[in-house]
Amino acid sequence: MEKALVLFFGLLVFTSCDTINNDVVQEDECDLPSELIQEIASYQPTVNRIIDSVTKGKHRGQPYKLLEDFIDKFGARQAGTKNLEDSIDYVFDLMRKYNLENVHGENVTVPHWIRGHESAEMLQPRKAKIAVLGLGGTISTPPEGIEAEVLVVRSFDELNQPNVSAAAKGKIIVFNNDYITYGKSVVYRSQGAVKASQHGAVAALVRSVTPFSMYTPHTGHQSYRDDVKKIPVASITVEDAKMLQRYQDKGIKAVIKLHLQSEHYPDATSRNAVGEIVGSQKPEKVVIVSGHIDSWDVGVGAMDDGGGAFISWYSLALLKSLSLQAKRTLRVVLWTAEEPGFKGVHQYEKDHKNELDNFTFVMESDEGVFTPLGIEYTAGVRGGCVLKQIVKLLEPINATSTKYYDSVGSDIAIWARKIPTASLYNTNENYFWWHHSDADRLEVLDPDNLDKATAVWAAVSFIIADLKDEFPREFNDISTLSNSKIIETLNTLKQKPTR
Amino acid sequence: MEKALVLFFGLLVFTSCDTINNDVVQEDECDLPSELIQEIASYQPTVNRIIDSVTKGKHRGQPYKLLEDFIDKFGARQAGTKNLEDSIDYVFDLMRKYNLENVHGENVTVPHWIRGHESAEMLQPRKAKIAVLGLGGTISTPPEGIEAEVLVVRSFDELNQPNVSAAAKGKIIVFNNDYITYGKSVVYRSQGAVKASQHGAVAALVRSVTPFSMYTPHTGHQSYRDDVKKIPVASITVEDAKMLQRYQDKGIKAVIKLHLQSEHYPDATSRNAVGEIVGSQKPEKVVIVSGHIDSWDVGVGAMDDGGGAFISWYSLALLKSLSLQAKRTLRVVLWTAEEPGFKGVHQYEKDHKNELDNFTFVMESDEGVFTPLGIEYTAGVRGGCVLKQIVKLLEPINATSTKYYDSVGSDIAIWARKIPTASLYNTNENYFWWHHSDADRLEVLDPDNLDKATAVWAAVSFIIADLKDEFPREFNDISTLSNSKIIETLNTLKQKPTR
Repeated sequence: MEKALVLFFGLLVFTSCDTINNDVVQEDECDLPSELIQEIASYQPTVNRIIDSVTKGKHRGQPYKLLEDFIDKFGARQAGTKNLEDSIDYVFDLMRKYNLENVHGENVTVPHWIRGHESAEMLQPRKAKIAVLGLGGTISTPPEGIEAEVLVVRSFDELNQPNVSAAAKGKIIVFNNDYITYGKSVVYRSQGAVKASQHGAVAALVRSVTPFSMYTPHTGHQSYRDDVKKIPVASITVEDAKMLQRYQDKGIKAVIKLHLQSEHYPDATSRNAVGEIVGSQKPEKVVIVSGHIDSWDVGVGAMDDGGGAFISWYSLALLKSLSLQAKRTLRVVLWTAEEPGFKGVHQYEKDHKNELDNFTFVMESDEGVFTPLGIEYTAGVRGGCVLKQIVKLLEPINATSTKYYDSVGSDIAIWARKIPTASLYNTNENYFWWHHSDADRLEVLDPDNLDKATAVWAAVSFIIADLKDEFPREFNDISTLSNSKIIETLNTLKQKPTR
Repeated sequence: MEKALVLFFGLLVFTSCDTINNDVVQEDECDLPSELIQEIASYQPTVNRIIDSVTKGKHRGQPYKLLEDFIDKFGARQAGTKNLEDSIDYVFDLMRKYNLENVHGENVTVPHWIRGHESAEMLQPRKAKIAVLGLGGTISTPPEGIEAEVLVVRSFDELNQPNVSAAAKGKIIVFNNDYITYGKSVVYRSQGAVKASQHGAVAALVRSVTPFSMYTPHTGHQSYRDDVKKIPVASITVEDAKMLQRYQDKGIKAVIKLHLQSEHYPDATSRNAVGEIVGSQKPEKVVIVSGHIDSWDVGVGAMDDGGGAFISWYSLALLKSLSLQAKRTLRVVLWTAEEPGFKGVHQYEKDHKNELDNFTFVMESDEGVFTPLGIEYTAGVRGGCVLKQIVKLLEPINATSTKYYDSVGSDIAIWARKIPTASLYNTNENYFWWHHSDADRLEVLDPDNLDKATAVWAAVSFIIADLKDEFPREFNDISTLSNSKIIETLNTLKQKPTR
């Protein structure tokens, strides 16, 4: 545990060192045939061409430049809106302009919820504005708002205590959940309204899921249950959650008046955006690179997930420009409606049920596009060993590290341990500072990082699509490995960016 | 120049090293009498008592705890409001409870401007909310708002170019001034409305003065001129200023609709808050410790300047509790209405004109209360040498550094080079992240830092008030010193927190 912690925190520091050796699969445990090792090594000139063209040549700065134009033109791209559909059409035009093949959309039914006026005021113990941001799909308050005393809890367990539960009736429940990891803390955002309602609360306010706050509320998906009365739910800032906790701990009554207005429109039709470079020898076999095209309505979705979407489609544009056609088909999919609950990928899985066996490898970048370190993956030991050989070729941009997780990406996590999957391993330790907030703007990203990430994405997807043999489709029991103890720690500490 | 830069940036890194040697006055250039050196050294047991009592003993955590109660009770404390006056009365009660002497207020006439509804929307090239925060004292827009095309300039020089000036008429001028230092960049906030109006603009929007943004607008003081037509002025975020710049650079027209409502009430009466420990031998001689009690209306003014105000009055409470009475009088002054233009200190200077010669040393903490490093000062070489001996005694809390600037503090800068002055030297390199924004909340501060800062403040003020001889009241030509070349660089780079 201690060693693992050191390794984990090490990566926060050693962002520019050669190889971050915290993969559960160690190279000395690999046993690949020497022909395969040599075959992978033979791609070094190709990888160098890819890297040079996008970090020094005519493609340099293009992923960022095109993303900038896109973001400035469309801003936020919320599921259900015409703006999202216009932005998808715009990307189709880009894909065609850059000579991708089979560019098309695949229909997806998506929810259409639009935020209206939102405000909150603390009336007691002093008058003050409280920053609020309704969670995705929240119902509105009555037009006159909801005025109620606040009851603060640090956890669902605390709310379940009989005396606390009894006090919850008629209150606005404030979930003041400490940020541990995104995965552990986000349950208060996704389930807070339901849990609070079950105890008779009239509304719920959830501390924003972030390790750092500049008095910034963060929105996100939340789920009502059909058998539990719906109550309005919004996020508040870390600072206000802590303040309300202090009042309560000191026996000072706090009263808040909450206004949340929004509209639930009928479901709309959106599209997953697809483009390809068809394979030369095994066109039915597919390597997917992906990101999601939709965003929340706050900020402009530059980080989540403009960056991931643009390095994905641009990787194919880059390969096409370099006349690099792999034996298998390379396919970019920009998922729609990831934010309101992975609608795009779920429809895609249904529609492509018969093709799943042909998906050799699926990649998604939705965990930030900061300085690339290498590849994060879910595969068996042999898959990890193949990836280790591939990322060695990325030495010119110091992206030679691998890391195993039990599931990677956000949309593609539905295929974890069914299809080998990968995400961009990058210095994303501050990802949640900006996530789902007004602060997710173009300035979070950096042109050089997008260039390097595009190189990683293009090189890894191309090699896997071009190797003689299929990427190992096996998911060994990783717990047998000597370094397996670090998996649990890594997964516990992981700051997993999903909806 | 190069060396100086290295030294300056060094301090950003070496925050926990022993002594940061970037003072223009070097110890080997000091020539203090050995009796004085011994006299200062003899205070080590006293300083140890001070440090121990507030970092380990019964005072530990008290400065933060009392500030927390204060901030949670009053929130923001804007000049002209009853809330500010109530908060001053509350501090009087605290001062009396902690046995300060001569606790009283001294009247100051202050402006009374209250922000109302504010909003901005970009209408072209796409619809989007633009975060705005009216600058202090701005006039309102007409009720229907101001809708105009945007003209972005990076500097006053650019605005002065004939073709740009000609294009400014009828536009909303956006000042997209890069953050260089606070001192260099803040002129666009303080003078932007006047400069824009002189070129015929209908309103001005100023990029927030900060090196880091989470889409956070920052307010602050701005000055109209009687001979220039007043136009509404507000800050916008760094992100939106850059976006509007990009539109303009690409030839894309941007139109904004701006609503700013506020009320200008008649001037009000506020008070500088004063308390003392009267000196035992030279009561007419005074060492002042200070901070300002008012804040802007956004955030809660915990950092600017709740922390400075509370370490100041609590330093006297601590000394009193330890029965430490100096030969000279120790006086705390909590300036009122610093934010709208140093109203409190200006009135104080007038009212105490005849007493200024008796002000031995004046200290103000208004540059953050992060990890204390020592003392920042404006004095002559001999004064710097005395301070070097004093801060040596702060070795138990690693606050043994000194740094010369041409002026320190914010209010007390009016006495630079007339009275020896000092500020808390601390790791405030991120001060402007939170400054004058909704993010200035209690969480910016840390209890241990406030304890240590109180120890620095109490120890330094007590020793200077208790030394046999007066603190050297001389302001040599510092340019004769061998290290003087670093002054200019330091002052250029300085992130000076004033209004």
